[in-house]
Amino acid sequence: MQIVVMGSAAGGGFPQWNCNCRNCYSLRQGNFRGPSRTQTQVAVSDDGHCWFLLGASPDLRVQIESTFALHPQGGTRHSPIAGVVLLNADIDHMVGLLSLRELHQFVIYCTVSLRQILLEDNRIFGILNRVPQQARWMDAKVGEGFPLKTVSGVETGTSCELFPIGYKWPAYVPRDRRERLEPDAASLGVTLTSAGQKRLVFLPTVPSIDNDLLQKLEMADLILFDGTFWSDDELVRVEKGGPSAGEMGHVSVGGPNGTLSRLRGLLGPQKVFLHINNTNPMLDPTSPEHKSVLEAGWRIAEDGWRFEL
Amino acid sequence: MQIVVMGSAAGGGFPQWNCNCRNCYSLRQGNFRGPSRTQTQVAVSDDGHCWFLLGASPDLRVQIESTFALHPQGGTRHSPIAGVVLLNADIDHMVGLLSLRELHQFVIYCTVSLRQILLEDNRIFGILNRVPQQARWMDAKVGEGFPLKTVSGVETGTSCELFPIGYKWPAYVPRDRRERLEPDAASLGVTLTSAGQKRLVFLPTVPSIDNDLLQKLEMADLILFDGTFWSDDELVRVEKGGPSAGEMGHVSVGGPNGTLSRLRGLLGPQKVFLHINNTNPMLDPTSPEHKSVLEAGWRIAEDGWRFEL
Repeated sequence: MQIVVMGSAAGGGFPQWNCNCRNCYSLRQGNFRGPSRTQTQVAVSDDGHCWFLLGASPDLRVQIESTFALHPQGGTRHSPIAGVVLLNADIDHMVGLLSLRELHQFVIYCTVSLRQILLEDNRIFGILNRVPQQARWMDAKVGEGFPLKTVSGVETGTSCELFPIGYKWPAYVPRDRRERLEPDAASLGVTLTSAGQKRLVFLPTVPSIDNDLLQKLEMADLILFDGTFWSDDELVRVEKGGPSAGEMGHVSVGGPNGTLSRLRGLLGPQKVFLHINNTNPMLDPTSPEHKSVLEAGWRIAEDGWRFEL
Repeated sequence: MQIVVMGSAAGGGFPQWNCNCRNCYSLRQGNFRGPSRTQTQVAVSDDGHCWFLLGASPDLRVQIESTFALHPQGGTRHSPIAGVVLLNADIDHMVGLLSLRELHQFVIYCTVSLRQILLEDNRIFGILNRVPQQARWMDAKVGEGFPLKTVSGVETGTSCELFPIGYKWPAYVPRDRRERLEPDAASLGVTLTSAGQKRLVFLPTVPSIDNDLLQKLEMADLILFDGTFWSDDELVRVEKGGPSAGEMGHVSVGGPNGTLSRLRGLLGPQKVFLHINNTNPMLDPTSPEHKSVLEAGWRIAEDGWRFEL
């Protein structure tokens, strides 16, 4: 399985348009040692020709142009993008669907709940179904594995399993809709298993770490894991108020109950943080936080990173 | 009045993710003589500190980062963006509102019809009103001038007048909604008048040119005008089928009834094409079409161009 990290930042990207925090300020000044980052986007492929996107970030258009493997190949209109797997209704995870609106045929795997939010409460996504056979919406069930297939039904060799990770819908989802949604579909993780039985676990949003999750991580060869905030009060301090990381549905990287501490015993898989907020001090390669991440055996994803399992 | 063209391409940008036409192919090969282009986005300012966006393109995040004047200045959270003026409900003209979701206070000027489409049929735009005093929606009436004001009610010196230019709503707007919308609000142009009485007319979408429009153009100092397609059958030939430019609501640049011909007598204002589709041959600086545009006294906008009136 080939994996490309097309974007590695949390919602808003790095730098964020209205943020002047230490990281954003020094990046714009040209003094920051690390790279800028677009919003989290991952693509996977079994053969290098047919690709599935995990999520659809608002930056998808520029991310596709930055990723040679996703450029059109033959014919006047073409794309190697065969489909998209959606995990949640967060804006930074699905608005990019609207960048895939130019009549290309592709598959969208998501839960019935997520499809209802997109197509019934947000009519703009109807643009993906202007003509018959444009986007093909495939209902995915939480906890049931399924093979990734192209629009013409060809199996790619990769199989997919969605699992529940959180129970919070985005703020914009109307109350009457929430009452009719599958409770365990609000926020998902995904395990992708290649033909050769290699496993990627992709978790851009992790509210908390429990034993079920630990078991899944132990079976993985590579985990791409929520690195949004370093500490629970990170945004509170930058914004002088506002929600904690926990209230926003993210376990912190640092601290006694943070990911580094909780997953200290996880030695099998390659461990990579992505979905990193612009305020996170570990973005700065000269910071003690950055150093402690590397010392704990983790890496901090940058846009363009590739993996092969 | 300061004007920045932050993006100059039509919907999909140049290159377009799934397009392998002559222009897109040669740009990706490194053989194209002109630059790539993001989707059409313009910003205006009276004083260089307080800026209004005309539309909100899907590429807005990267466009803001590319525009120094729009970077945050003082404080931890800040943006020089005071507001947005919206002309239509096209995806390439308003999805970027979702990139302005990080609690910054700003004004959105649009018609009641457009506000209803956004907030009632597309709940995702509710993210702009997560907290009180976030986005302030101001009802703009077609044909009635109004001063551009900041959220705190300060007049910027620029006044604004929206005028009808087309009667077609985007395909995604539901039928029952269409019946309740103001018929002349579907697609608008805008005249912006500076404190010094200089006039910009911004028209990213022009279905046809009539005498009313000619009169408005004759009073302008600068026009930024629909340059989507060179010829009426341009997309039909590239896609081997599909709609004509006219059916998509765009007058062509070339041909006996095209813009160059119809506006031949318009000698007062600076004349600039933007909203240029990736398939338009005039994008190629070596093409005869490009040459004939320049010879007719027009220019072909590139991302980053600035004007001062």
